[in-house]
Amino acid sequence: MRSVCFTAVASSDGVVERDFTVGEVPGVLFSPASGGDHAPLVLMGHGGGLHKKTPALVARARDAVTKWGFTVVAVDAPGHGDRPRSAADERARTDLREAMTTGDAGGVRAVSARYGAALAERAVPEWQAVLDALQELPGIGTEAPVGYGGGITLGTAIGIRLAAIEPRITAAIFGGGFVVDQALIDAARRITVPVQFLLPWDDEHVDRESALALFDAFASTEKTLHANPGDHRTIRWSGVDDGFLARHLGVN
Amino acid sequence: MRSVCFTAVASSDGVVERDFTVGEVPGVLFSPASGGDHAPLVLMGHGGGLHKKTPALVARARDAVTKWGFTVVAVDAPGHGDRPRSAADERARTDLREAMTTGDAGGVRAVSARYGAALAERAVPEWQAVLDALQELPGIGTEAPVGYGGGITLGTAIGIRLAAIEPRITAAIFGGGFVVDQALIDAARRITVPVQFLLPWDDEHVDRESALALFDAFASTEKTLHANPGDHRTIRWSGVDDGFLARHLGVN
Repeated sequence: MRSVCFTAVASSDGVVERDFTVGEVPGVLFSPASGGDHAPLVLMGHGGGLHKKTPALVARARDAVTKWGFTVVAVDAPGHGDRPRSAADERARTDLREAMTTGDAGGVRAVSARYGAALAERAVPEWQAVLDALQELPGIGTEAPVGYGGGITLGTAIGIRLAAIEPRITAAIFGGGFVVDQALIDAARRITVPVQFLLPWDDEHVDRESALALFDAFASTEKTLHANPGDHRTIRWSGVDDGFLARHLGVN
Repeated sequence: MRSVCFTAVASSDGVVERDFTVGEVPGVLFSPASGGDHAPLVLMGHGGGLHKKTPALVARARDAVTKWGFTVVAVDAPGHGDRPRSAADERARTDLREAMTTGDAGGVRAVSARYGAALAERAVPEWQAVLDALQELPGIGTEAPVGYGGGITLGTAIGIRLAAIEPRITAAIFGGGFVVDQALIDAARRITVPVQFLLPWDDEHVDRESALALFDAFASTEKTLHANPGDHRTIRWSGVDDGFLARHLGVN
């Protein structure tokens, strides 16, 4: 088993950010400056083409630490952020860019589905290794409940496959904004923990029907679909239950 | 114009309940025992076959008074509660019961759509007359913002048609669980105020597609779809933004 190597630490406004690696996977751990021992641990995914310190992710992570006392961990997905890109990564990114430039919606979907599935296949065991290593740390341990904190697009394509096989995840936030294939539907059918599903209602790159079929597929008795107008870049969420993870991870 | 005639008053746990009539329409006004002058006014609809004092409605109304300081008004829909039933009402109820008993889903939908539309046609001007009369009261007046507080099924079939033509309504909660016809879609297209739309995800009497088409039709830039598993009788709502009306009616 691989251990956590901390490589940098910074602290501001009551939140400590620790950069780390677990094997070749770089990550960042956000935790309360004090009193965060054995706090619920939230795994936060980033979107396709982005990385573990994308401003929106950092803002959500810091908010979760400050508001709920969570510890939050984010990692770079394969081929993203600080990680090297393979020839296959470069090819997929070029294909995706070309399809988007020429307005080839079918092409965007095909490349996204194929590349997303390939990334998720690599990312799921990485998340499990990171979780194993973090649970070895005295301030985290195995008793803290674990949730998946979403990220629409790639963060959800990975998160659904992870939650389907990882019993340590006891509640999860997923989101639309990506391509749904049969493998993802099948993974969703294996998920029974409470799910909050955030759907941008007007996403040009998403087939709304398939996103609704994905929500339908979760086997969870407690699941919530929340949709607002907009696509995954322009959406302004409103009325989202931001206490969802806290409630299910035992805060309050 | 018709005035409000109060016929009974009762008070408990900080909430005053005043029975009233406006013309032939019986209603009930829930208000804070003190300090409720010019509070936001919420019109609350009841479901098909129910009435203005159905326990679930009373519970929601009292909660809204206690939690947000709203004044809430409910009225019996035509042919419901304390109101006489016409021969047409009796016939529609018999038809509906028969279709439900024989498990004729198409029949249930056909009768519901026809009867719901007929009831709404009568109920909309009644709501407007009640609102006119209430605004004449010194404790309410015309300056208090007005919202529609939902009720799925019949409460929404009436509410959408009302909000489409009534500029005094500045935010509305609607819900699935009823039959959607083209007239209702057309009414939804005329609504531009913030909408919260509550959808029971597994309602046997509702075509999910048409409920989603209804959500799609609202012209509101701010609208939220919220779905949980269950049908309109068994649903347990979770994670609903219960501050929606308060936010839009100027509380907080």
